[in-house]
Amino acid sequence: MSAVDINCDLGESYGVYRMESDEAILPLITSANIACGFHAGDPATMRQTVQQALGHQVTIGAHPGLPDLQGFGRRRMDITAREAYDMVVYQIGALDAFVRSCGGRMHHVKPHGALYNMAAEDDRLAEGIAEAIYKVQPDLYLYGLAGSSMIQAADRIGLRSVSEVFVDRTYASDGTLTPRSQAGAVIQQTEQALAQVLRMVKDGIVVSTEGTLVSIKAETICIHGDGAYALAFAQEIRTLLESEGVKLSAPGVAR
Amino acid sequence: MSAVDINCDLGESYGVYRMESDEAILPLITSANIACGFHAGDPATMRQTVQQALGHQVTIGAHPGLPDLQGFGRRRMDITAREAYDMVVYQIGALDAFVRSCGGRMHHVKPHGALYNMAAEDDRLAEGIAEAIYKVQPDLYLYGLAGSSMIQAADRIGLRSVSEVFVDRTYASDGTLTPRSQAGAVIQQTEQALAQVLRMVKDGIVVSTEGTLVSIKAETICIHGDGAYALAFAQEIRTLLESEGVKLSAPGVAR
Amino acid sequence: MSAVDINCDLGESYGVYRMESDEAILPLITSANIACGFHAGDPATMRQTVQQALGHQVTIGAHPGLPDLQGFGRRRMDITAREAYDMVVYQIGALDAFVRSCGGRMHHVKPHGALYNMAAEDDRLAEGIAEAIYKVQPDLYLYGLAGSSMIQAADRIGLRSVSEVFVDRTYASDGTLTPRSQAGAVIQQTEQALAQVLRMVKDGIVVSTEGTLVSIKAETICIHGDGAYALAFAQEIRTLLESEGVKLSAPGVAR
Amino acid sequence: MSAVDINCDLGESYGVYRMESDEAILPLITSANIACGFHAGDPATMRQTVQQALGHQVTIGAHPGLPDLQGFGRRRMDITAREAYDMVVYQIGALDAFVRSCGGRMHHVKPHGALYNMAAEDDRLAEGIAEAIYKVQPDLYLYGLAGSSMIQAADRIGLRSVSEVFVDRTYASDGTLTPRSQAGAVIQQTEQALAQVLRMVKDGIVVSTEGTLVSIKAETICIHGDGAYALAFAQEIRTLLESEGVKLSAPGVAR
Repeated sequence: MSAVDINCDLGESYGVYRMESDEAILPLITSANIACGFHAGDPATMRQTVQQALGHQVTIGAHPGLPDLQGFGRRRMDITAREAYDMVVYQIGALDAFVRSCGGRMHHVKPHGALYNMAAEDDRLAEGIAEAIYKVQPDLYLYGLAGSSMIQAADRIGLRSVSEVFVDRTYASDGTLTPRSQAGAVIQQTEQALAQVLRMVKDGIVVSTEGTLVSIKAETICIHGDGAYALAFAQEIRTLLESEGVKLSAPGVAR
Repeated sequence: MSAVDINCDLGESYGVYRMESDEAILPLITSANIACGFHAGDPATMRQTVQQALGHQVTIGAHPGLPDLQGFGRRRMDITAREAYDMVVYQIGALDAFVRSCGGRMHHVKPHGALYNMAAEDDRLAEGIAEAIYKVQPDLYLYGLAGSSMIQAADRIGLRSVSEVFVDRTYASDGTLTPRSQAGAVIQQTEQALAQVLRMVKDGIVVSTEGTLVSIKAETICIHGDGAYALAFAQEIRTLLESEGVKLSAPGVAR
Repeated sequence: MSAVDINCDLGESYGVYRMESDEAILPLITSANIACGFHAGDPATMRQTVQQALGHQVTIGAHPGLPDLQGFGRRRMDITAREAYDMVVYQIGALDAFVRSCGGRMHHVKPHGALYNMAAEDDRLAEGIAEAIYKVQPDLYLYGLAGSSMIQAADRIGLRSVSEVFVDRTYASDGTLTPRSQAGAVIQQTEQALAQVLRMVKDGIVVSTEGTLVSIKAETICIHGDGAYALAFAQEIRTLLESEGVKLSAPGVAR
Repeated sequence: MSAVDINCDLGESYGVYRMESDEAILPLITSANIACGFHAGDPATMRQTVQQALGHQVTIGAHPGLPDLQGFGRRRMDITAREAYDMVVYQIGALDAFVRSCGGRMHHVKPHGALYNMAAEDDRLAEGIAEAIYKVQPDLYLYGLAGSSMIQAADRIGLRSVSEVFVDRTYASDGTLTPRSQAGAVIQQTEQALAQVLRMVKDGIVVSTEGTLVSIKAETICIHGDGAYALAFAQEIRTLLESEGVKLSAPGVAR
């Protein structure tokens, strides 16, 4: 692929509790996923983060999560597809009002945490989420795990999807992420991570933990914004991709 | 006035906790104010209530409140104008997504409970709320207490306002509501309430508790939907107004 | 068994949202499980319900649930044993302060909803809950599903358990409840339910859906308090058991 | 006074949101006020903070606040004395269960933020809080603003009080704190703060902003634990007081 998006989760502060990373990572990314108040984020944080993203000409997406602030939306909950639909409509709408009131336009939706993981495996949940997005604004992109139920649900609904890959996670032969509970799930070596990213983006291929070549669609790369290492690593990814002639831009955006 | 709106607060269920009144009152009103999840309401309730309102061709407004489910948004909180702005943007947006996804269009915003009461007296808070509404969608109406800071703030911002009167409350000589803590705040007699409504709507006049005639703008009437008495009373108001040639319709709506 | 306990979940109101059943069912039960504010209940409701239970000389238990008011604690959440431990300690303590401040003494703990169901199947979760109870007050009883992980965990920890049976649910050959998702899970006929209760209490036997006789320990019977039918049914159970010489009393309580 | 207590607010983390100060400040204080989950804190944080405080032989107090996590309990809410009573009983109980389950015993209660400030001025609210504490455990100390309604309410109820002073705040001639909204409310100079502390503790006198000498009871000093400056300042206060022969210990504790 000659172009790829770099996305990061932002706006995760809550009240007096600050996550300080946002300003530093914004110049390094092309898309921001902004928390919507269920697993993180509050109205003031949402407004400020939208303003920052607009200031850096980064596309804005809603980052809806499970209603579990204490668990940061990382604990799976046994919800129905209808409940997923409703909580996604609600959260998209809340963020969209901040985007519109700041003169912007929402670009995409990326489910957060356990909601993302559950929807990657569960067709009905994925379809509930995709339908929610489509009904609110049919030209939004759904960011989902490459090759997962989420991408397929978007296709069925008629919603545009963006396949997401992870730079610091290893993949199994069937194209799924190695579960964090298993050894070797996280790539510790910067070199290895960079090599994997490059191959995924340029060739559409990832080497699985079993050593097989797996085809993968890498339309957006998820990076983290917290800490000095994350920032330096993000910069390395950008430099590498640009030096290889890959254009960094969000889907549908001409820069 | 030859036309008046009748509004009611709806969608106040939460999870297993049901407020059963909505279906019964809908045929009797012209505008619905739907709770947005802060003081009452949840995503499923919001969707269902929006669908019901659309089914009855009743205009839909957001009914944002303070973040206090336990106190039903009735306990005053010491918030800044900026906090009011943010919580109104958030809640309007959440409801708007349900309205849009059901094929409707939001018509108005009416603050709830303590937020309504505080904004009726506090210019800066009122302005924060009016600005929030204007920034999200400038053609929305702000429903506010007749003669209060809210109506004035809407005027300053350039937002259209709708002056609200209460059928079962008495008024002081300065046009403010008699506080509930005082004797005689609530009208107990149906006859007296009906007479007051009629005079407010037809002549723009209310008789204060001191006996003086006070001019009042009655563009929308707030009624309650809970219980057999409330329903019967709502029907009596409709019958009376229609028999006096007053058209019942929401602002800006031609029926 | 010559004595059995009858328990009911109470104190499930929240703010303006009322569950009206409590006063009517109290004369018919011997133990009350009071919600602690996570899935239902609020501080005022807890105080009032404790006072009512003390007034009816009914033993008081904490009824801790998952932190999910919107789902009434009925949606499974993927929590660790440590998280279960912590949320049970917290909720027991909160209720205990109301019990002590009203001059009473807490008698038991019964997990609620999804927490109850998960702990019935998951040894580690069950042990986290049992340990929490033991550490706060070692002479509390744990009410758990008869024959389940919860009863076994209490035994291992050294906590006293009380085996609970359900009057309106059918059982499989292995002594587990037929899942609600299956046909025949709920007993519709009053006669059949009464016959099952009597046999469970007097003979320690239940006839499974496969027709086999399964031994079951019936130390406490769970009943519901909502609605006219539930109240009449509770009265029928009492009358039947008393006519058969079964004493109705909470564990450890001499009346 | 020949002895004084040094207290600090701890356990204010929530879920993934960490306040990192606790371990560093514990060796420098004699009393810890631990958040109880309403304005800050969660069950896991409460348990961990109780364990840390016990490990440092610091007395443990509950630090109940308003139900406003987003505002960190700093926004005044219009609550009744009964609501204050109920929320304090609840929160004391929740923390007490962690203290007891860790083998400790609760020592005191200090209301937090807006609840503290409101109770310092409002006799009925102060009495609701004092009564809640007394009813749960009558030998607890109430930490309250020196000379305020809280101290007086404790006296009336028969609850032991501990008068609190602030090292970095100036006082008016009537013994109240200069409101933060006024210039000169906060002491910027370390020297001045240390001199004020010493005089309050040794002589029971503070120099008001008008220059008058005001008598003040300084039984406990409130310090902050966040940041390098706060830690260094706490150490300076300790060194100064000890060099002047003042013993540092919590009320009722013989070391």
